[in-house]
Amino acid sequence: PEVLRKKVWGICKMSKEVAQDDPRRVIHSLKVGLAISLVSLFYYYQPLYENFGLSAMWAVMTVVVVFEYTVGATLGKGLNRTMATLAAGALGVGAHYLASLSGETGEPILIGFFVFVQAAIASFIRFFPKVKTRYDYGILVFILTFSLISVSGFRDDEVLEMAHKRLSTIFIGGSACVMISIFVCPVWAGEEFHYSIAEKLEILGDFLEAFVDEYFTTSKEGDSKDNKSFLEGHKSILNSKSSEEALANFARWEPGHGKFKFRHPWSQYLKIGALSRQCAYRMEALKELLNSNTQGSPEIHCTIQELCSEMSLESSKALKKLVVSIRTMTMASSADIHIANSKAALKSLKSLLQSNLWKETDLFSLVQPVTVASLLIDIVECTEEIADS
Amino acid sequence: PEVLRKKVWGICKMSKEVAQDDPRRVIHSLKVGLAISLVSLFYYYQPLYENFGLSAMWAVMTVVVVFEYTVGATLGKGLNRTMATLAAGALGVGAHYLASLSGETGEPILIGFFVFVQAAIASFIRFFPKVKTRYDYGILVFILTFSLISVSGFRDDEVLEMAHKRLSTIFIGGSACVMISIFVCPVWAGEEFHYSIAEKLEILGDFLEAFVDEYFTTSKEGDSKDNKSFLEGHKSILNSKSSEEALANFARWEPGHGKFKFRHPWSQYLKIGALSRQCAYRMEALKELLNSNTQGSPEIHCTIQELCSEMSLESSKALKKLVVSIRTMTMASSADIHIANSKAALKSLKSLLQSNLWKETDLFSLVQPVTVASLLIDIVECTEEIADS
Repeated sequence: PEVLRKKVWGICKMSKEVAQDDPRRVIHSLKVGLAISLVSLFYYYQPLYENFGLSAMWAVMTVVVVFEYTVGATLGKGLNRTMATLAAGALGVGAHYLASLSGETGEPILIGFFVFVQAAIASFIRFFPKVKTRYDYGILVFILTFSLISVSGFRDDEVLEMAHKRLSTIFIGGSACVMISIFVCPVWAGEEFHYSIAEKLEILGDFLEAFVDEYFTTSKEGDSKDNKSFLEGHKSILNSKSSEEALANFARWEPGHGKFKFRHPWSQYLKIGALSRQCAYRMEALKELLNSNTQGSPEIHCTIQELCSEMSLESSKALKKLVVSIRTMTMASSADIHIANSKAALKSLKSLLQSNLWKETDLFSLVQPVTVASLLIDIVECTEEIADS
Repeated sequence: PEVLRKKVWGICKMSKEVAQDDPRRVIHSLKVGLAISLVSLFYYYQPLYENFGLSAMWAVMTVVVVFEYTVGATLGKGLNRTMATLAAGALGVGAHYLASLSGETGEPILIGFFVFVQAAIASFIRFFPKVKTRYDYGILVFILTFSLISVSGFRDDEVLEMAHKRLSTIFIGGSACVMISIFVCPVWAGEEFHYSIAEKLEILGDFLEAFVDEYFTTSKEGDSKDNKSFLEGHKSILNSKSSEEALANFARWEPGHGKFKFRHPWSQYLKIGALSRQCAYRMEALKELLNSNTQGSPEIHCTIQELCSEMSLESSKALKKLVVSIRTMTMASSADIHIANSKAALKSLKSLLQSNLWKETDLFSLVQPVTVASLLIDIVECTEEIADS
């Protein structure tokens, strides 16, 4: 009992964490419950029930399977499912008709053959990378519907009616999902994506600031703890590719909402994401330098300190301006100044290095310019993108 | 028609590419076709059909949904589905019984309430990170089954029979999938994972070799094309985290096969994967240095050339020995020599740098040690892991 109580307590704590992490998760769970009970009760109270018969459960099934966290994912799955059912239904009825022409003995063979060919081709198509990202679920439903119609139509010869029933129930279930996910506290994938990109740039900016602090201040006291967390922040960016791609993919399905139009340039966001990953890789390398305790002699340190920290801080400022301008979706003219400043600092640092001071510290000073240069490319691209949105 | 023909041609070319990329994909597609036709025909020829009624389609559905590319994924989904159906079936019947006790008016309310609570809680649990990776699909099926049993049991009062039917059909469909995926040209996730890790280490080794070539040879002729491709190779490692985790996850479901036992230490593989990503980040930074055209003066270049290239080449050799030993699953004692060699080179390089030569090139020489040092950590961990397997 003691062990059990501890376990229960652990689960409670975990659920609290999950809920606090993003309160919308609780709302999402309630929404799912709402959608399913609504559809269930709809079938209970409607006199239509007798009409739909067992197909009613298709509606419930659709709700369970289609309802996703973001609006885009729900819409994408719903549309995929509807389209695939439509297409597979038509083809399945056709295949069934063809097979029934061939008489008693030929029928099972032909149907088996059709199902085999269809399943094999569709499974193969799922491997196409483009199809995989957007229509994977649709093809799964296609195989399913086609097989079901062929096999059960076989028995009942009520194929057309069955197809019609399935379509209408799926439509009811799907539209219930879409309605609820859009009108009850919607979570837009596009918005998520937009803010996650802004957050990433902010993390990069924080990193640069913290880096300057850490590298150029000799006093390492209590406040370095704070910096440490900033210095670790970029880790989350390193592996963000797949989640970003998923979000962009969902966002493409979404209709216009809030400040976003239907064909918002999501691919631009992906580009920024890729560039911020590039920056994060550089930062990983910079951080490694912090850890390696081969630090230069203090006087040389001082020589380049000013320029390096100016470069970093200006870049950081530019990034933060960009964050603001992404969040408010305005043109970022104010960032340009900071970019120009940091570019100027980069130039003078380069000339300083080429002149005479070929000392130990240029290790750092040369890695830093590389980072900053790539950051600058990033920033230039960002401004381009913001001009788009 | 011209446009159409071009499109068809394009699709044909793409399918050929996809097929050549990995011929097992074609086999997989045929396996799916086989599984579905088998199950369909089973229901056609069996006198059992009448007995199972419409539930027969559950078997088809299970096959379509459960059949995945690797054995591990299929097994995982199959087990998830069976367990979830069992649990939800039991709970659903219980809920139905409870509700029926409360009389005509209370019944729909209670059932609606149960469905709502169940769906909300289960959806919430899906957000738990641990549950998400392994049991996501099971919980989906749980919601589905519970709702279906509550709703349709409502009408027919044949709940128990329906639950029994569903379970047996799902079991038939699931076992057909598992059988076919295991016995007909199986694709083991564990094996895939094993070889992908070996391949990654090989890529890292190639990179180090190519890097030495590129950086220290002044003649940049035709053969540098070849190096370029090696230098790009590590890009594929940078974003490999999610696919690796998925493979490890599938591999955990697999029974012992070939050289792998049931509880093979897959988490060790994940560690190697993470370390090779760390290396790839460093390499990204190194490559950036190649591109920046601020190269040092030739004579200093020469001074450190020998030690640096020895370091890189020895690390590369050690990595390649490790690749061989991972592939053959033996202890990698031969790699230790190379590790020792490169460590020695690293040491002498460090002392060389600390003595007098604080010249421009130590930029490179210090970044390189860092990289190599991290590579060495990697390698040490690798040998540990190989001792395990």
